Amino acid sequence: MKVYVLFSGGKDSSLSSLILKNLGYTPILINVNFGVLDSYKLAEETAKILGFDFKVEKLDKEILEKAVDLIVEKGFPRDGINYIHKQVLEILSNKYKILADGIRRDDKVPKLSYSEIQSLEMRKNVQYISPLLGFGYKTLRDLTNKLFIIEEIKSGTKITSDYEAEIRAILKERGEKPEKYFPEHKQTRIIGVKKWEV
Amino acid sequence: MKVYVLFSGGKDSSLSSLILKNLGYTPILINVNFGVLDSYKLAEETAKILGFDFKVEKLDKEILEKAVDLIVEKGFPRDGINYIHKQVLEILSNKYKILADGIRRDDKVPKLSYSEIQSLEMRKNVQYISPLLGFGYKTLRDLTNKLFIIEEIKSGTKITSDYEAEIRAILKERGEKPEKYFPEHKQTRIIGVKKWEV
Repeated sequence: MKVYVLFSGGKDSSLSSLILKNLGYTPILINVNFGVLDSYKLAEETAKILGFDFKVEKLDKEILEKAVDLIVEKGFPRDGINYIHKQVLEILSNKYKILADGIRRDDKVPKLSYSEIQSLEMRKNVQYISPLLGFGYKTLRDLTNKLFIIEEIKSGTKITSDYEAEIRAILKERGEKPEKYFPEHKQTRIIGVKKWEV
Repeated sequence: MKVYVLFSGGKDSSLSSLILKNLGYTPILINVNFGVLDSYKLAEETAKILGFDFKVEKLDKEILEKAVDLIVEKGFPRDGINYIHKQVLEILSNKYKILADGIRRDDKVPKLSYSEIQSLEMRKNVQYISPLLGFGYKTLRDLTNKLFIIEEIKSGTKITSDYEAEIRAILKERGEKPEKYFPEHKQTRIIGVKKWEV
């Protein structure tokens, strides 16, 4: 059974794919792209390292523009990133019947509420899985350190394959400083697998 | 690394153990008992079928009595069962450093709030994992049907290894009818494994 995993190449979406594979699913890794940057490249490399099929889903740049409107209006990225994630799930659930992502228990964003998840699954007749939702920060740190070779990337220094890369590009186009909205943080990318079949 | 899984022998705690094993943990299955019935027997059999170590943790009957007080007072089992589950986690986190259970996304009870989980992990310096928290009803039905041979048990007809069995016994001791508090429902027990290493 195929499961379509929203995939950035980071440790969370990589571990989610691994858990689903171990449950007998065939993960197909999906990187969403709004046509602003070729930001899918790092995710594509990581998908190859993990040995899973990979697809880029090109979605309407309007979604990204509207998210950036929200970010500039609010002064922080939370609502804009949530907006993108919900739109992505809405659109992809028209063609894929089992969707997954790497959202963790301690993530504040992106995150759907319980009733949003119920609504998505019922309206679209899909299954939506977040395999890491019951795992805390420490547990995931231990697990991903054990399983993966992880590259840490200082935010904004490399074109990563998450929503943030294209958001930053649009902010710059508009003459805004991305650092004003994204405090410095670390992103991760899987560059090797230590243990696969555990 | 050992993980202590609160285990009833049902499909949820069985699948949780499987996911944790596939992530490289060694699951030790724990059935909680309050000394009222030998209700751990079915869980013990299922643990043997799964091939995992099994332990009975005998806890103070006071906890069960207080839960039954709550159930009778409220007229429904939710708060009483939640009370037991929280007490069990509090007590076991004094001796076990990684705890897990089979709570699912769509469970209403037992369930800890996000702040209760944070509080437990910080105060006790433990990790608490609910591997099924990001999985919905349909997904779990498909997965457990694929992986396990499941026995369905009409509630109240067999001494199952969950909190309910001993709650029912205390209700009867007090001259109450358990059916008044537990509407008829189905419990499950794993009696065989179809696919283990997937």
